[in-house]
Amino acid sequence: MTAAPGSEGLAEAYGEIRRVTERLAAPLSAEDCVVQSMPDASPVKWHLAHTTWFFETFVVSAARPAARPFHPQFRVLFNSYYNAVGPQHPRPERGMLSRPALSEVRAYREHVDCRIAELFAEGAVDESLAARVELGLHHEQQHQELILTDLKHMLWSNPLRPAYRDGPQRAEGEAGRLRWRRHAGGAASIGHAGGSFSFDNERPRHRVMLEPFEIASRPVTTGEFLEFIEDGGYERAELWLSDGWDAARAQRWRAPLYWRREDGAWRIFTLSGARDLRRDEPVAHVSFYEADAFARWSQARLPSEAEWEVVAAKEPVAGNLLESGLLHPAPSPAPSSAPPAQLFGDVWEWTRSAYAAYPGFRAAAGALGEYNAKFMCNQLVLRGGSCVTPRSHLRATYRNFFPPQARWQFSGLRLARDP
Amino acid sequence: MTAAPGSEGLAEAYGEIRRVTERLAAPLSAEDCVVQSMPDASPVKWHLAHTTWFFETFVVSAARPAARPFHPQFRVLFNSYYNAVGPQHPRPERGMLSRPALSEVRAYREHVDCRIAELFAEGAVDESLAARVELGLHHEQQHQELILTDLKHMLWSNPLRPAYRDGPQRAEGEAGRLRWRRHAGGAASIGHAGGSFSFDNERPRHRVMLEPFEIASRPVTTGEFLEFIEDGGYERAELWLSDGWDAARAQRWRAPLYWRREDGAWRIFTLSGARDLRRDEPVAHVSFYEADAFARWSQARLPSEAEWEVVAAKEPVAGNLLESGLLHPAPSPAPSSAPPAQLFGDVWEWTRSAYAAYPGFRAAAGALGEYNAKFMCNQLVLRGGSCVTPRSHLRATYRNFFPPQARWQFSGLRLARDP
Amino acid sequence: MTAAPGSEGLAEAYGEIRRVTERLAAPLSAEDCVVQSMPDASPVKWHLAHTTWFFETFVVSAARPAARPFHPQFRVLFNSYYNAVGPQHPRPERGMLSRPALSEVRAYREHVDCRIAELFAEGAVDESLAARVELGLHHEQQHQELILTDLKHMLWSNPLRPAYRDGPQRAEGEAGRLRWRRHAGGAASIGHAGGSFSFDNERPRHRVMLEPFEIASRPVTTGEFLEFIEDGGYERAELWLSDGWDAARAQRWRAPLYWRREDGAWRIFTLSGARDLRRDEPVAHVSFYEADAFARWSQARLPSEAEWEVVAAKEPVAGNLLESGLLHPAPSPAPSSAPPAQLFGDVWEWTRSAYAAYPGFRAAAGALGEYNAKFMCNQLVLRGGSCVTPRSHLRATYRNFFPPQARWQFSGLRLARDP
Amino acid sequence: MTAAPGSEGLAEAYGEIRRVTERLAAPLSAEDCVVQSMPDASPVKWHLAHTTWFFETFVVSAARPAARPFHPQFRVLFNSYYNAVGPQHPRPERGMLSRPALSEVRAYREHVDCRIAELFAEGAVDESLAARVELGLHHEQQHQELILTDLKHMLWSNPLRPAYRDGPQRAEGEAGRLRWRRHAGGAASIGHAGGSFSFDNERPRHRVMLEPFEIASRPVTTGEFLEFIEDGGYERAELWLSDGWDAARAQRWRAPLYWRREDGAWRIFTLSGARDLRRDEPVAHVSFYEADAFARWSQARLPSEAEWEVVAAKEPVAGNLLESGLLHPAPSPAPSSAPPAQLFGDVWEWTRSAYAAYPGFRAAAGALGEYNAKFMCNQLVLRGGSCVTPRSHLRATYRNFFPPQARWQFSGLRLARDP
Repeated sequence: MTAAPGSEGLAEAYGEIRRVTERLAAPLSAEDCVVQSMPDASPVKWHLAHTTWFFETFVVSAARPAARPFHPQFRVLFNSYYNAVGPQHPRPERGMLSRPALSEVRAYREHVDCRIAELFAEGAVDESLAARVELGLHHEQQHQELILTDLKHMLWSNPLRPAYRDGPQRAEGEAGRLRWRRHAGGAASIGHAGGSFSFDNERPRHRVMLEPFEIASRPVTTGEFLEFIEDGGYERAELWLSDGWDAARAQRWRAPLYWRREDGAWRIFTLSGARDLRRDEPVAHVSFYEADAFARWSQARLPSEAEWEVVAAKEPVAGNLLESGLLHPAPSPAPSSAPPAQLFGDVWEWTRSAYAAYPGFRAAAGALGEYNAKFMCNQLVLRGGSCVTPRSHLRATYRNFFPPQARWQFSGLRLARDP
Repeated sequence: MTAAPGSEGLAEAYGEIRRVTERLAAPLSAEDCVVQSMPDASPVKWHLAHTTWFFETFVVSAARPAARPFHPQFRVLFNSYYNAVGPQHPRPERGMLSRPALSEVRAYREHVDCRIAELFAEGAVDESLAARVELGLHHEQQHQELILTDLKHMLWSNPLRPAYRDGPQRAEGEAGRLRWRRHAGGAASIGHAGGSFSFDNERPRHRVMLEPFEIASRPVTTGEFLEFIEDGGYERAELWLSDGWDAARAQRWRAPLYWRREDGAWRIFTLSGARDLRRDEPVAHVSFYEADAFARWSQARLPSEAEWEVVAAKEPVAGNLLESGLLHPAPSPAPSSAPPAQLFGDVWEWTRSAYAAYPGFRAAAGALGEYNAKFMCNQLVLRGGSCVTPRSHLRATYRNFFPPQARWQFSGLRLARDP
Repeated sequence: MTAAPGSEGLAEAYGEIRRVTERLAAPLSAEDCVVQSMPDASPVKWHLAHTTWFFETFVVSAARPAARPFHPQFRVLFNSYYNAVGPQHPRPERGMLSRPALSEVRAYREHVDCRIAELFAEGAVDESLAARVELGLHHEQQHQELILTDLKHMLWSNPLRPAYRDGPQRAEGEAGRLRWRRHAGGAASIGHAGGSFSFDNERPRHRVMLEPFEIASRPVTTGEFLEFIEDGGYERAELWLSDGWDAARAQRWRAPLYWRREDGAWRIFTLSGARDLRRDEPVAHVSFYEADAFARWSQARLPSEAEWEVVAAKEPVAGNLLESGLLHPAPSPAPSSAPPAQLFGDVWEWTRSAYAAYPGFRAAAGALGEYNAKFMCNQLVLRGGSCVTPRSHLRATYRNFFPPQARWQFSGLRLARDP
Repeated sequence: MTAAPGSEGLAEAYGEIRRVTERLAAPLSAEDCVVQSMPDASPVKWHLAHTTWFFETFVVSAARPAARPFHPQFRVLFNSYYNAVGPQHPRPERGMLSRPALSEVRAYREHVDCRIAELFAEGAVDESLAARVELGLHHEQQHQELILTDLKHMLWSNPLRPAYRDGPQRAEGEAGRLRWRRHAGGAASIGHAGGSFSFDNERPRHRVMLEPFEIASRPVTTGEFLEFIEDGGYERAELWLSDGWDAARAQRWRAPLYWRREDGAWRIFTLSGARDLRRDEPVAHVSFYEADAFARWSQARLPSEAEWEVVAAKEPVAGNLLESGLLHPAPSPAPSSAPPAQLFGDVWEWTRSAYAAYPGFRAAAGALGEYNAKFMCNQLVLRGGSCVTPRSHLRATYRNFFPPQARWQFSGLRLARDP
């Protein structure tokens, strides 16, 4: 979905993207779909309903204000955080909802899909409504990623450590040697220039001034991160931001999330269950604090989001994404002279940039203005996309963001440094 | 099960009591059975598994130490609090367990039921094992009650306020006028004398000295409790214990749990859904603190457990119990000259007695000694039984106990006073 | 003050007891008197003011309602918990009060002492007012003990571990061998019979029924408690009440409060600073949970308060009390045939009895009814008195009470057992 | 101290700046100096000792490694957060320290002042040591500000609401009408260019790219903030960042800190006690969240720190600073054609810029590298200086920083907007 589709293409995209969501949930039992393992993560059933609520609220009700909603209480139950729409069921209590049953949520999805199909069939999807459908599809894709990351956390919270599905063949390959790619700096432009879909937080395109910098040819691997651990990385305060040190102490971090030392060997939990650590994979499930400490230990730093974007802007959006079906980061040898590898896919890459408005930023009017703008504080930007991000969801200007202590996403890092 | 059955009777009782548990869970979906609404309450699936674990651990494994357990990790997953058996899955995380699936837990129940049946068939159930089976059946009955009270809390935690099942016909009748029954006091004996099943905490039978007292002819009704509310009961510090006042402030208590004021009228949530308050029913879902404050407001007090027992010892164990199928307290007119009514059934009655060891008490040896003894602190004794207690589980010497702030049980009160 | 004094004797007692309080505070700087080390403990300055507030509120204002208070805001600032008097400055914020200055609080004390003296001089102290003065003096004595225990905690919270004052000569002696004194049980009476001062919670005198029991000849010593520690007492769940085990885990208890292992040797913090542990002293600063676990480890139990009282009723109130000046428990050899030693003084002795109303108990009317009655939940009774209790404050019927996790009082234990 | 002084000038500056600290503490009692009102704020005594510790640790011990410290435990007690120096007394327990006495801390100050004087007298202050002395003096000045802001919070935490000192004459004048000053944007340079003292976080000077912007002629006044309140500013979620809305709910913010509505009128607490709100003063004691919400309500935004600096770089460092003695923001009429007023003094101005490293930033080596660098996360930059900042402490490149929820500093705001 790189170019804004016409109404027909949009209807088709709607069907495809909605089906992807259902395929992701297909292997799961109703029991799997109801459990919430922490306030930050939502049950799969909630994701299935909330993405539907988004279309019902912002498309169907906008086009047909008199139409009766599927269920009068869903407006509150499945509202995530839109104060302009009204009150919300409390986030930490999303796991209380044994009802509606999963089957009822599936009926809800079908119901709204039918209403949307009717709007398309009736030619009622004008430009404004098309924009909302397109936004809803990107929203659905974000929740496809969240379904897998939230589910991974839920499965891991169960001492039986169940798998989401059987593991795929082992991804072949070794990580290439880390090399530095130099950039001359100077004035540059970042942000989305229009002409196709982007979120409001990617706009407007604007000039920035960069100092010369170097960026790593590939993300940091688990093997490299293991060296940091073995060098006492988690015990050396001088490597850490003050808040990061406090978080690491309070939560007793000793390794990335989902790592576990058993009988002297490191094991790692994946969506295919627990297995031995593989040293050539990009490291994932580290917080910004751990990424930052690792970079300092490496006598390097994290890139800014502008540095990342000027490098990535020249590269195609391709890599180990949701469509690869691996659902886990994989090694990708980077030839010595090529541009940086794995910019897209495998792991989201923490940048040093606080998530903030671009100069001249204007949030959308009304409830949809709450989509991105109100979170512009206490979060850091991640770039690139992960092994569970749909390909059509990404572009070089895409800004993901999470609080610095978050670890349950496929979040890794790529080093940068001053020449 | 008032008399200890012989081996045959015991095998039969086993089958009957286990079937009751399954009938209670029958109307529920797998989703309903997995959710945990608060740390004090457990998912229905967990209850189904834990009661089975009890028989597997204390009967099957005791009789057949070499037998392989149904699942190697269930020993930890479904251990509630027996440190002597080993580590336990943390209580607040019982709701993380989407696996084992409900169907697998049902298979676990069948598996253990077969092993028990085999033991009976093989004549392997000697006196010691029979005692453990009998204990396990009383344990199962306690969890039958908890299945319903925990489920009620879970359903109420869902804004859709779903019902467990359709409501029965309205229970007829009005509460009789409250009358006082006088007791002369003096030396008396309480506690279980042996000869049939009792928990260790009911023993040994021992002498107590009572002052003369009066006890109410029936429990306090919702209508009477409403008068307390309307008289500012929840706002008058002088009526409350200090800890109770703090709890009521911190948790913003304004009425018993499950009461809700809507459009000027009081509504009450039941296992059959929400409906209007009925003033003649015994009040339920009050904490000890609320019961104590109500009693002070009434210029009365709560009875001691010894006072309660000497009165109840003369009465048959009968009333609105699980078998009535109402699953809610019901009015029961008390004739003016009869003994106190509703001593058994409807609501557990808070006493003023701290839960403590009787003189000469000895906890059972080994893990089963943890059943009751280690909770003898910070709890209060309740007597009588509720509308969700199985009849064969009760007797006049039975001691139930909960912390003073607990409200999710069918806990009410009966007044007493000094002449 | 064993007998209720006439008005003259009472005026004299007033002066004496108030002077004791000031002597206790005399070695302290203004800085020492303002710090609050935890919500349970109050600054010395607050104690000095609150005890004065008690006399101003319940005596001076009662006798002279039109008299202006010393400071209009002190009514709130120094009200501890009397809701009937009005709102209170929050307990955890008592350490915020750099003002009023210590000198101003001393002026407050002088002011109220003068008003009291005037009432005596004018013959205005009738029987009712005399009862309030007497209650105020017992109240003042309770706070004399609290001044020292709260101060001890504050000094210990300072890494410099400063001493309140230089240590006295070492208390001589060895603890006698522990022997058991047998009591035949049967009907007995406990509680205060009137005729002299007692708190409302000691009344009414009433009959109890006791089983035969044995009680230890002396309190448990630090040496004996050390054996419990060395036998893994703090790591063995089977020895602990469930709530106690949780408290010990959560707070990482490894020894009584104020014990510290340094370079392989146990050191203990006292009001005279830190020094080596002495094995013959009664152990102090243990919670009820630790006392209970120790007793279980000893294959014994804690006495009930009735058992304690029937034994102590025959003994004189004498021992290592505040007047000895040691401010620390001391060994006291118990001859082999004598009655139990050290019933009074050295350490308060935890009993197994929950703090509750005696049969027929009536709290005082009005605000003074809040003195004791509203705390009758979640606390355990201690008996005897400690090395920082004034002698004239005690009697065999005296009931002290604290929550089971409290450790900052001089709380120890004496064993009992069933024959 | 705008220019780095020679050794003689530095010795003189040392004496002057240290005396300012003592003058600030002079009106306070020892009791006032020991209390800690919240974990973020420290007792005055702690500030007096910590600033001295800084000179002892980083100057005296660096120059004379063999010299005995004043007190062996002060190294831990008065270490704020320097992990490279060693462990620290926990921040929330700084109020436990009744000892060392204030008099002992004064002796500590004198002792270290003597050692420093000796170093100067002996000609031992080489360039490296001079840099540490200069850093220590700027550090001392930061704590001069903190002494007053922490003290203000402590006095306000006392229901007596005592004043630090009698109020000065009322500051005359009205706030000028708010006007917008336009800036053309484009490439610019910010950061400190060297040649005189600066903190490491102000360096290196580097190029930035600015869009055209407008900035307000003066800070926002209390009168303007009152309009925001009266327009429901604290109840309208759409005006707030998500985290800000949560903080405002959780802490029940209804107005800036130290504002209080009494009998229909707004009162404000100052270092001279409580008085009526004056509508022409710059508003102070607002969090970043409140500043941001106010700006959104004003259809404006906060300036970035680069925007602020390019405007302020042309203005002299002058205004209502510590030396004015007002200790409170004051109105300052801004003539219609002048440059923006009150850039320095009155209130620190929240910017929209997250506190982060400038491109090419290098933290100092060793412990002093912890001074600023490790806090570069979860904080926002404030610019300008307040009514309690010493004049010689400031410059246009100065970067102050606090978490977005902090309100106890003199933090206000100035609006900016896109043309």
